[in-house]
Amino acid sequence: MTVIGTIASHSALQILRGAKEEGFKTMLVCDRGRKKLYERFGLADEYVFVDKFGDVLKKEVQQELIDKEVIMVPHGSFVEYVGARELLNFKVPMFGNKNVLVWESDRKKGQTWFKKARLKIPKEFKDPSEINRPALVKYPGARGGRGYALVKNEKEFKERVGKMGKGMLIQEYIVGTRFYPHFFFSPLSKENEIMGIDIRYESNVDGLSGLPEILHMAPTYVITGNIPVMMRESLLAKVFDMADSLIKASQELFYPGLKGPYCIELVCTDTLELYLFEISARIVAGTNVWVPGSPYTYFKYGKEISTGRRIAMEIKRAIKQDKLDEIVT
Amino acid sequence: MTVIGTIASHSALQILRGAKEEGFKTMLVCDRGRKKLYERFGLADEYVFVDKFGDVLKKEVQQELIDKEVIMVPHGSFVEYVGARELLNFKVPMFGNKNVLVWESDRKKGQTWFKKARLKIPKEFKDPSEINRPALVKYPGARGGRGYALVKNEKEFKERVGKMGKGMLIQEYIVGTRFYPHFFFSPLSKENEIMGIDIRYESNVDGLSGLPEILHMAPTYVITGNIPVMMRESLLAKVFDMADSLIKASQELFYPGLKGPYCIELVCTDTLELYLFEISARIVAGTNVWVPGSPYTYFKYGKEISTGRRIAMEIKRAIKQDKLDEIVT
Amino acid sequence: MTVIGTIASHSALQILRGAKEEGFKTMLVCDRGRKKLYERFGLADEYVFVDKFGDVLKKEVQQELIDKEVIMVPHGSFVEYVGARELLNFKVPMFGNKNVLVWESDRKKGQTWFKKARLKIPKEFKDPSEINRPALVKYPGARGGRGYALVKNEKEFKERVGKMGKGMLIQEYIVGTRFYPHFFFSPLSKENEIMGIDIRYESNVDGLSGLPEILHMAPTYVITGNIPVMMRESLLAKVFDMADSLIKASQELFYPGLKGPYCIELVCTDTLELYLFEISARIVAGTNVWVPGSPYTYFKYGKEISTGRRIAMEIKRAIKQDKLDEIVT
Repeated sequence: MTVIGTIASHSALQILRGAKEEGFKTMLVCDRGRKKLYERFGLADEYVFVDKFGDVLKKEVQQELIDKEVIMVPHGSFVEYVGARELLNFKVPMFGNKNVLVWESDRKKGQTWFKKARLKIPKEFKDPSEINRPALVKYPGARGGRGYALVKNEKEFKERVGKMGKGMLIQEYIVGTRFYPHFFFSPLSKENEIMGIDIRYESNVDGLSGLPEILHMAPTYVITGNIPVMMRESLLAKVFDMADSLIKASQELFYPGLKGPYCIELVCTDTLELYLFEISARIVAGTNVWVPGSPYTYFKYGKEISTGRRIAMEIKRAIKQDKLDEIVT
Repeated sequence: MTVIGTIASHSALQILRGAKEEGFKTMLVCDRGRKKLYERFGLADEYVFVDKFGDVLKKEVQQELIDKEVIMVPHGSFVEYVGARELLNFKVPMFGNKNVLVWESDRKKGQTWFKKARLKIPKEFKDPSEINRPALVKYPGARGGRGYALVKNEKEFKERVGKMGKGMLIQEYIVGTRFYPHFFFSPLSKENEIMGIDIRYESNVDGLSGLPEILHMAPTYVITGNIPVMMRESLLAKVFDMADSLIKASQELFYPGLKGPYCIELVCTDTLELYLFEISARIVAGTNVWVPGSPYTYFKYGKEISTGRRIAMEIKRAIKQDKLDEIVT
Repeated sequence: MTVIGTIASHSALQILRGAKEEGFKTMLVCDRGRKKLYERFGLADEYVFVDKFGDVLKKEVQQELIDKEVIMVPHGSFVEYVGARELLNFKVPMFGNKNVLVWESDRKKGQTWFKKARLKIPKEFKDPSEINRPALVKYPGARGGRGYALVKNEKEFKERVGKMGKGMLIQEYIVGTRFYPHFFFSPLSKENEIMGIDIRYESNVDGLSGLPEILHMAPTYVITGNIPVMMRESLLAKVFDMADSLIKASQELFYPGLKGPYCIELVCTDTLELYLFEISARIVAGTNVWVPGSPYTYFKYGKEISTGRRIAMEIKRAIKQDKLDEIVT
């Protein structure tokens, strides 16, 4: 009997609840400190306790998960704590194509992917001397958070950042509204489905709004939560086109490409142009705002479906159709 | 058999889903470019393809819609692409009173309506020389978007706008929180119902918040999405009073007045005064955030009802009571 | 037959709808001006009309409520209009422990409580001369609203506030994202449950964001509405720990302590530290955004449960278990 499992953080509550809705048993890889939190919700049928999440790679832990027929669902904290490259050697079946996690976590690979998909992305400045408009300097490894600096020209770059470092990315700062649409690409039906959209609620930048400038400090972008949002329906066709292109490009770059849940990170200018600045190639925490379901899944299904549940639905169908190998790696 | 139809944009997904929930067949007027988007959701039983939305006025298109017993539901893009005055000659039955669309799209008529309803509106400056506080200059035809300028005095008006033009409106800028409550006035029960409230998510103004002032540019107000919001319950009685007054005034100004869904656009100061600055006299895109339902419709109905579904419910009741002529024009 | 009642404001619609969902009859204490609003929703089986909400203390009103076996559910407006100390002499059974309302409405008692719970709170400046960073001056009695001033040093304090007054509180201004998690502590199961989280939508501060600095005025913080938000799952364990500590401290300070719904008001810095700045020891209006239910209640219950309904569920269980005295005072 297939069991759906994940690691105790990020969107684990949603993944487990979705699994239960589709009739699966659930397994949670948990450290002692988080046990109490997850027990409050009563969603895990079984726990594997580890000292730290990285221990999920230990041989005996992997063996237990394999013996219990667990399919692990990766999420942001999973990748962060275990490592995208380390997951390549993980023997437990994982939902989706885990090769994509290497692509999403490497900024250079990401840029290759976006260009292959011919998507509009913010202009990159190869050298600080090229900076001729507001630009965001992204430090290597930083995904959001404090590893960003906002500069307007080379002088500010020198003051705030210093020297151009290895793995640093300098990108034009596009002013506009941010949208984080969540998609699900079904490896079984080959359909791209929109699951919902959120806006990230970031500290300290979202705590600075409305305050007198004099109180302002350099904005930081640490994700602390998510807010639900719906997008103008006339932009939706464009967003789907972008998602379709990314799937197609992924299949060409790393066959069989991206599968399952992902999120494309967009900014929309006041001329309604959409720029892609990042992709998360697994379930994002923003999907939590749309539990039990979003307007988009309600439009499609006539009932409320969360991303966590959508994952479980796909696993269930794959089992019925004897195609589990098409949805896991 | 009555069919519910609309044009493929804005809130079409919601209107079609609502129609299906109430058991109606659906019809979508679509251009080729949008076909793929709407097929993903599978909500249209039939399509009429047009080269551009304005072609819905073509004699043969109208005839097809009439032959198939379609009731068309107007929305913002419908009015924008076809034109409020052109719709007066549209022979296909439309939900609501289409005369109201002429009133909502004409700024002078709007002001007459709001004054008739004795609602508090931002002070109007007839001449740039009168500007003695922050003011918003609205260009003719602009509804939100880039056709707005924010000025503090005559000098700034001259710099940024130039000369006072025909159809321009200069309005006091009221600082406060914006609310866009969605209502439904039932022509059958004569009741005013609140369906939900949203906040507009506008580019670039909502992308500027929290950023250092030095990065700021003149804010623009292009609607790119919508965020759900609930209003302090103690303000709700006032908001209903405003809505009731607008309905009453509409019946006096253009009998039989406003019917069906509409949205009043408010700003709430820190002394809890509510100013009306605009009305949309048809379904607004902000209703999309509350699919399948809002807390307000849940309070009233004990189940979730979207505006799209509420429209279909009214059509269904009208058919049962043989009163279709009371809900369409 | 137990009836669930409340006062016609704040979260009354939610409380009454929740009562109906659990099969209770409902009673609304209402002034004539609000009758129309509440009749639109049809949620009150009976009304007691009063000239002003304070009249709920009148002997004959209390007697009627007692005769009709009403359990009154307190909310923010209830406390504001009637008074926390006055409620101590109210003879009608009230849901929860009404002694807590005295603690939450007294700033000094609040600080004692938070310190007893060993929670991180913003630094307090006892004297204006100590102000060495941005600080919020809270006037006595002001809870949000216009009774706040933002100052950076003693000089600004003198300019904007003048002299240190009795009951004034000067607190370090912590920049970060605000979260208002709603909890329910069950006196029957002794479990702490999270019901949802909101962000307050405040005038004029939330109307100033994105505007050019030159238009800015001193921000004010009058609550006009609420926006739904979800918190990073990895912060949730910390938030539950804070809530558990507050419950424990409340039981030590004023036995039997806090019972039923409450809200802790947090700010999250960009190093993911959580500061507590206030507590509301009864249902908060922010719970209205999560009707009929939030993702958190869906995770726990597998169905949508609002705070209003959760209250009614607790009353129902207490009746079944013959433990009404454990849930009312």
